[in-house]
Amino acid sequence: MDVTHVLHMNGGIGKSSYANNSLLQKNGISLTKHIREEAIRSLYRSTLPSCLSIAELGCASGPNAFIVVSEIIKIVEKLCKEMNQKCPEYKVFMNDLPGNDFNNIFKSISSFKEKLSNEMKSQIGPCYFYGVPASFYGRIFPNQTLHFLHSSYSLHWLSKVPEGIENNKGNICMSITSPLNVLKAYYEQFQRDFSLFLKCRAEEVVEGGCMVLTFSGRRSENPYSNECCYIWEVMAKALNDMVLEGTIKEEKVDTFNIPIYNPSPSEVKLEVLKEGSFTINRLEVSEVKFESLLESEKGESFNDYGYNVAKCMRAIAEPMLINHFGKAITEELFYRYKEIFNDCMSKEETGIINVTMLLSRKPYARSI
Amino acid sequence: MDVTHVLHMNGGIGKSSYANNSLLQKNGISLTKHIREEAIRSLYRSTLPSCLSIAELGCASGPNAFIVVSEIIKIVEKLCKEMNQKCPEYKVFMNDLPGNDFNNIFKSISSFKEKLSNEMKSQIGPCYFYGVPASFYGRIFPNQTLHFLHSSYSLHWLSKVPEGIENNKGNICMSITSPLNVLKAYYEQFQRDFSLFLKCRAEEVVEGGCMVLTFSGRRSENPYSNECCYIWEVMAKALNDMVLEGTIKEEKVDTFNIPIYNPSPSEVKLEVLKEGSFTINRLEVSEVKFESLLESEKGESFNDYGYNVAKCMRAIAEPMLINHFGKAITEELFYRYKEIFNDCMSKEETGIINVTMLLSRKPYARSI
Repeated sequence: MDVTHVLHMNGGIGKSSYANNSLLQKNGISLTKHIREEAIRSLYRSTLPSCLSIAELGCASGPNAFIVVSEIIKIVEKLCKEMNQKCPEYKVFMNDLPGNDFNNIFKSISSFKEKLSNEMKSQIGPCYFYGVPASFYGRIFPNQTLHFLHSSYSLHWLSKVPEGIENNKGNICMSITSPLNVLKAYYEQFQRDFSLFLKCRAEEVVEGGCMVLTFSGRRSENPYSNECCYIWEVMAKALNDMVLEGTIKEEKVDTFNIPIYNPSPSEVKLEVLKEGSFTINRLEVSEVKFESLLESEKGESFNDYGYNVAKCMRAIAEPMLINHFGKAITEELFYRYKEIFNDCMSKEETGIINVTMLLSRKPYARSI
Repeated sequence: MDVTHVLHMNGGIGKSSYANNSLLQKNGISLTKHIREEAIRSLYRSTLPSCLSIAELGCASGPNAFIVVSEIIKIVEKLCKEMNQKCPEYKVFMNDLPGNDFNNIFKSISSFKEKLSNEMKSQIGPCYFYGVPASFYGRIFPNQTLHFLHSSYSLHWLSKVPEGIENNKGNICMSITSPLNVLKAYYEQFQRDFSLFLKCRAEEVVEGGCMVLTFSGRRSENPYSNECCYIWEVMAKALNDMVLEGTIKEEKVDTFNIPIYNPSPSEVKLEVLKEGSFTINRLEVSEVKFESLLESEKGESFNDYGYNVAKCMRAIAEPMLINHFGKAITEELFYRYKEIFNDCMSKEETGIINVTMLLSRKPYARSI
């Protein structure tokens, strides 16, 4: 799988789009607001930039792309009033892989700015938006040009499916039934990817600049813990059922693996310490319950957990599935997903574990 | 017409897409290569930036978006070798209105980089691409951050349809039969727009930085000269024929005006002198013959001027037409366009007039 070109959320604004099925992610972002608030207040006070550079890494499309940017501008504008400072200019970089639906984001910028101005009840500093279509597992900005980076639910996506996991048959990612070498391969891919991410950002972030990174992760140190992967195991079960019924070839499922790793707090911490350019100011774990998906639902689907989780998963995984299995299977697959989810899952205890870190760039080494 | 959201070339990579119907524009860009070469060599020698910021304003989608960027990087890399300098980093900003198909451009970046590396036969400096979805009749970059700006066939598009031209009945832009007040309104809108463009860029371009701007313009000082507007008059005739046959309501054509102005060399010169921040280093007129459209055509369409010009016009104007008249008319309209073009136009003498300027940013006034 060529992750750079295949991995992207469902584009557009239709029924199955990520734009219309990302409430869970929105709720997840809101859980970490206090961390961003602390970070941006401290950053702004200590650097007082005339132009503040913000990046949303893995922004996807739809309204979530603008949540954090909006928050940050509000905090900074408020601070400027408190401190009697001139408001800065804002450079806002929206990053995702080139297959992302940037057109959708770009068409929303003017309404975003209008809404923000209305909410602020005052003129805000000039705000320049840029799209950055590239993998964050590589350099995407020039040296020392960014003040604040945010990433939510992106860094658990790996740069590629790990090699040497041909024996992960019947599974589509790490699972309770995966052989040990598969877990090792996934973990090592995560280590390579996240350390490369840190190395690249270390060059791009200014001294004192910071990053708030939220992974879809796990609490437990046990990589066999199913707290992180059961949403994918439901999909594997749906695919395997379709194999049994002859709709999909077994070999197709055996060769399908998703490039995802849900790290524990100590696993992310270890990579930051090894890389060495960032200080860990905070490391927190939180949980978004699937219950929160139901808030905005009305009518029949109100109490249908499976229906809502299946919609969410479809928005995330459909392009990858279509790339491997073709378009014909997805309707049935997600119908089965919903059924299996409702039959098997404990409704009260299911959700997504967030592992969130606030990192700040250490001073650059000076040449003597 | 809300130009910011309605004006864009046909997206995608289909039969009617701009990506597949922009050979005329490509040929136009090649005519001004010597001006860019002179500009970038002089700019690079005098500023030696460690990070060179380039912007393509009104980039549209498809392969043309990358022509100038590719040229510039090649020139700079060659110069660096000659001067024994370390190659700079490149920041490349692709600008167009938010309705442009940025997704299409973004998906081509990796193949563009690969092609460039192969052509150069050596590693080039790091190259960061950004999309800038905003009108250039407003600020789109922070203060003093750009070295080189290029714009080809964009600046003749106005920010809006001029007001007070309700009496331009039967026409869809400036025409030989337009009342004088219509010509005046179009010219004044051009003056307001181009002077605003210059004012904004004057803040954004670094001292000594430069811009190469190509308008689809006219040679003659007579605004009634038809050298610039006959390609639109063919469209007006096709629309009016459809009114006569009852396919389109007369009122619909009477209220349709295109936000376009094709300036003469002295008109663009006047605005630059009035604004005052830029020196005019060159001002040239050239012509792209429609003949050049036929080069790549094979089979039946090889000698069919009308067919080829109609395809080109469709890629440019279809979104605007659909917005005003609906989708149903376009197939017939462009069939008629082709027929009228072949019946009425003198094949040897038709083409597009380029008015090209090389401007460089004067030194900023220093506060004492």
